[in-house]
Amino acid sequence: MASVNMELVKKLREISGAGMMDCKNALEEAEGDIDKAFTILREKGIAKAGKRAGRSTGQGVVEAYLHQLGDDFPPQVGVLIEVNCETDFVAKGEDFRKMARELALQVAAASPRWVSREEVPDDVLVSERTVYEAKAALDGKPEQVIPKIVENQIESFLKENCLLEQPYWREPKTSVQDYIALHISKLQENIVVRRFARFNVREA
Amino acid sequence: MASVNMELVKKLREISGAGMMDCKNALEEAEGDIDKAFTILREKGIAKAGKRAGRSTGQGVVEAYLHQLGDDFPPQVGVLIEVNCETDFVAKGEDFRKMARELALQVAAASPRWVSREEVPDDVLVSERTVYEAKAALDGKPEQVIPKIVENQIESFLKENCLLEQPYWREPKTSVQDYIALHISKLQENIVVRRFARFNVREA
Repeated sequence: MASVNMELVKKLREISGAGMMDCKNALEEAEGDIDKAFTILREKGIAKAGKRAGRSTGQGVVEAYLHQLGDDFPPQVGVLIEVNCETDFVAKGEDFRKMARELALQVAAASPRWVSREEVPDDVLVSERTVYEAKAALDGKPEQVIPKIVENQIESFLKENCLLEQPYWREPKTSVQDYIALHISKLQENIVVRRFARFNVREA
Repeated sequence: MASVNMELVKKLREISGAGMMDCKNALEEAEGDIDKAFTILREKGIAKAGKRAGRSTGQGVVEAYLHQLGDDFPPQVGVLIEVNCETDFVAKGEDFRKMARELALQVAAASPRWVSREEVPDDVLVSERTVYEAKAALDGKPEQVIPKIVENQIESFLKENCLLEQPYWREPKTSVQDYIALHISKLQENIVVRRFARFNVREA
């Protein structure tokens, strides 16, 4: 068996949130390539996570994050997030709370407006679509390609504004959804971000 | 001049948030009666605060409060609150931030649904009113007194569910609005609770 650099295992654990043995195995399988190992973990995690989707999540935790620009500044950006799981055993665990805190940081840093694309109100999509159509027409795009352009822009809009589809800030090659899937796989419970709030004093 | 017990001054400062000299003067005027002194402070504060209403509040702070039921419980109730003032000088001050933290505790403890009665949606009022009318009719109240009964119940509903009208948890004889007014008077700036969020894992 190839020997695996413990520094790499530690780093992979940090970015993936996965367990020690899973990280070690993935790194061995990837012959020490941390990017490959992360992809292996993620694919395994997502596969396992899929089986747990839809299971009832009545427990959970509320976490907060306040962002200060400097020592003598009061916090002017704040995030509150509720993350649910199946049992209070998992809710009490350090791994789960750490994940919830990471997600609060994600919301602070990346300013999502909704948890998932299912939550985006129809009138927002209609108004975005109208703007993209008008823009494409003004740019002189041929009429037959406009629907495709508009759909691509809607897709980008959703990826930018829905928490679960955003790139995870600590590991931008993976989505927030996949970061959560790694924890579903590790903790063996369904995990759901129920809601969040983000307040910024500077925003009108 | 009557000598004032420093313990009382300290206690009055704590419950009112007012300045040392204001507390001392109010206690002297009230001849050492802390309840009377609080009323004096409050009335002076409200009078001064009235003059500052409507002034622009572009600065402020975001505070959070997480409530744990015990050491081995994760936080299951969380509050995020944004409080605005006029200048960053006041926003940076310890008094202002302490007030914002007290208000976050208030929201955690007393579960308001809105900041002020102006924010309560019309359909909520209509539906509350319908319930109270039906209840009064079922109770066999005479028709001519029902409107008065309903209005009293609406008033109670608003006082219970609007943050600014709730009794301040540390000093239930005063309202949250009057607690804020004391700070407006002390800090000499208009102060506005812009918004809050309260998440509870146990709530459907």
